[in-house]
Amino acid sequence: MSASYNVAILGATGVVGQEMLKTLMTRNFPVKSLKLLASKRSAGTTVEYAGQTYTIEEATPQSFEGVDLVLASAGASISADLAPHAVKAGAVVVDNTSHYRMHEDVPLVVPEVNAHALKDHQGIIANPNCSTAQLVVVLDVLRKLAPIKRVVVSTYQSVSGAGKEAMEELRTQTEGALKGESPRPEHIKHPIAFNLVPAIDVFTDNGYTKEEMKMTNETRKILGEPDFALSATAVRVPVMVGHSEAVNVEFDRPVSPEAAKAALEKAEGVVVMDDPANHVYPRPMETAGTDPVYVGRIRGDVSHANGLNLWVVADNLRKGAALNAVQIAESLAAQGLLGRRALV
Amino acid sequence: MSASYNVAILGATGVVGQEMLKTLMTRNFPVKSLKLLASKRSAGTTVEYAGQTYTIEEATPQSFEGVDLVLASAGASISADLAPHAVKAGAVVVDNTSHYRMHEDVPLVVPEVNAHALKDHQGIIANPNCSTAQLVVVLDVLRKLAPIKRVVVSTYQSVSGAGKEAMEELRTQTEGALKGESPRPEHIKHPIAFNLVPAIDVFTDNGYTKEEMKMTNETRKILGEPDFALSATAVRVPVMVGHSEAVNVEFDRPVSPEAAKAALEKAEGVVVMDDPANHVYPRPMETAGTDPVYVGRIRGDVSHANGLNLWVVADNLRKGAALNAVQIAESLAAQGLLGRRALV
Repeated sequence: MSASYNVAILGATGVVGQEMLKTLMTRNFPVKSLKLLASKRSAGTTVEYAGQTYTIEEATPQSFEGVDLVLASAGASISADLAPHAVKAGAVVVDNTSHYRMHEDVPLVVPEVNAHALKDHQGIIANPNCSTAQLVVVLDVLRKLAPIKRVVVSTYQSVSGAGKEAMEELRTQTEGALKGESPRPEHIKHPIAFNLVPAIDVFTDNGYTKEEMKMTNETRKILGEPDFALSATAVRVPVMVGHSEAVNVEFDRPVSPEAAKAALEKAEGVVVMDDPANHVYPRPMETAGTDPVYVGRIRGDVSHANGLNLWVVADNLRKGAALNAVQIAESLAAQGLLGRRALV
Repeated sequence: MSASYNVAILGATGVVGQEMLKTLMTRNFPVKSLKLLASKRSAGTTVEYAGQTYTIEEATPQSFEGVDLVLASAGASISADLAPHAVKAGAVVVDNTSHYRMHEDVPLVVPEVNAHALKDHQGIIANPNCSTAQLVVVLDVLRKLAPIKRVVVSTYQSVSGAGKEAMEELRTQTEGALKGESPRPEHIKHPIAFNLVPAIDVFTDNGYTKEEMKMTNETRKILGEPDFALSATAVRVPVMVGHSEAVNVEFDRPVSPEAAKAALEKAEGVVVMDDPANHVYPRPMETAGTDPVYVGRIRGDVSHANGLNLWVVADNLRKGAALNAVQIAESLAAQGLLGRRALV
């Protein structure tokens, strides 16, 4: 790629925004100019990028003049307000919020799975929910071995998925708990230090939470299988960074753990960490800060001849958010779908 | 019950042994005399019970003379060594270790489910594994609504299941982590503070851990269904006390969440905590120190017409260990199966 791009990060002071900045840097994304946008409250503070100092600017409808690429992670309502202005100004928006994910004319993309969907974009591309992104990378590999009939997944999601305030809350509550103080929950509905909260986001009519239904619906859209059968239980755990998932997959015929392991070992973006004899299996704290989706505990299913169990761990700020967003931008660039000229 | 019994607690200094002592006290079990047995190392230390002071004695083959009931929780090898001596001396042993659970002539009992199995005892009754006990209470209620075809369960197990050293390890590691120190795992194989360890106990040949296969095999024995289909993933989480389980049940026909809820609300030992609109669902920290098995997040299954999802939480030291053991003793007494005369 010899082209380079005028990039804006919307929500640059958030935990995902910061990770986006770092990811652009470490992956050498061809940045011509960089604009860091956030709320009025943060405007004026400064951030370093590749030896240069950038001043945070207030995000307004006028912020996107001359911008080619917007990486947005400032919240659903802010994306709803500002993304149309960015598109009007000629930018392509990769949106990490939930707002556009299920819109019919917005591709929802995990590049390893459906980079081809990018060619239909109308200016906005949605980045899936963190717990979905890491799961579909694995499911897409597995469905090539045999059609998948059904998936049952239980998540173990870190507090960073709820933002930096939630991370601070876990830290503060934990310090307090060790001193015998009563926790005062604020950003997470119930105490999270030394505890579990089996509900993420609001409840929907069918008894699932929105977070759980996102996994069902976003997986269907990314895999292009509108009837894909997936049931999720999403649980917040006292871990800082890294989402883990206990995944049970029922195929329409037997798939051996060996075949699954071999396929996953060859897959882009996946690292198999599976050596029980030596106590090797992925754990969130040890894999945080790295890019891959890690898979371990690959085994048959004593309850079903066509079943397979897996344990899937990834850094929710990387593959679950910033990394996937930058990978989308890279794929857009590679396909000639990024930059003002591409939109003419 | 007008009879009273000479009771011994084997492993009286452990976290479950201490809970057994407390449970005997709070449930007014008719204790005539109490003997607290532990390793040589603890012998000589004292413990209070109902205003009396007891001195910990070293457990030896001669410790059980005149004892009616032994509550054992000192480890599988110690039960293997000493339980036969206790039985020979005329005692009934309720064993909380894994050693005898799958022995053909040893009943494995959760009183709400299979108290009837006690009548066949030959001196030893096994208490199930903590994660199994809370699950079978719920499954037994549900299978009365419709036959169960298959269960997929993911656990979130607290460190107290690994003993008081593991609880101390979580505390110490957490203090260290907050100061930026590197964790030094000892009783739990990998760092557990702000982390997950997706493997409990050793691995078996089929890729499941022993802990996971215990859930499959013990559930089969307690429910009296030798082919019961259950697949478990067992994960250690940084919670002090209380095991949680995300449970997916597939029936042979549809069972509504309402029917399941109604049945569970009437069930002995179960408390339904399920009011999503008001953020009510069971959480381990808030329910620790109480007896019931709590069930929440009861909902249908978007992936299967005959499926149901539930979230099951219980204090692993209570229903998962000490409470269930004392309930077994109560049931033995009520059925006239306890005491030296009953064995003649």
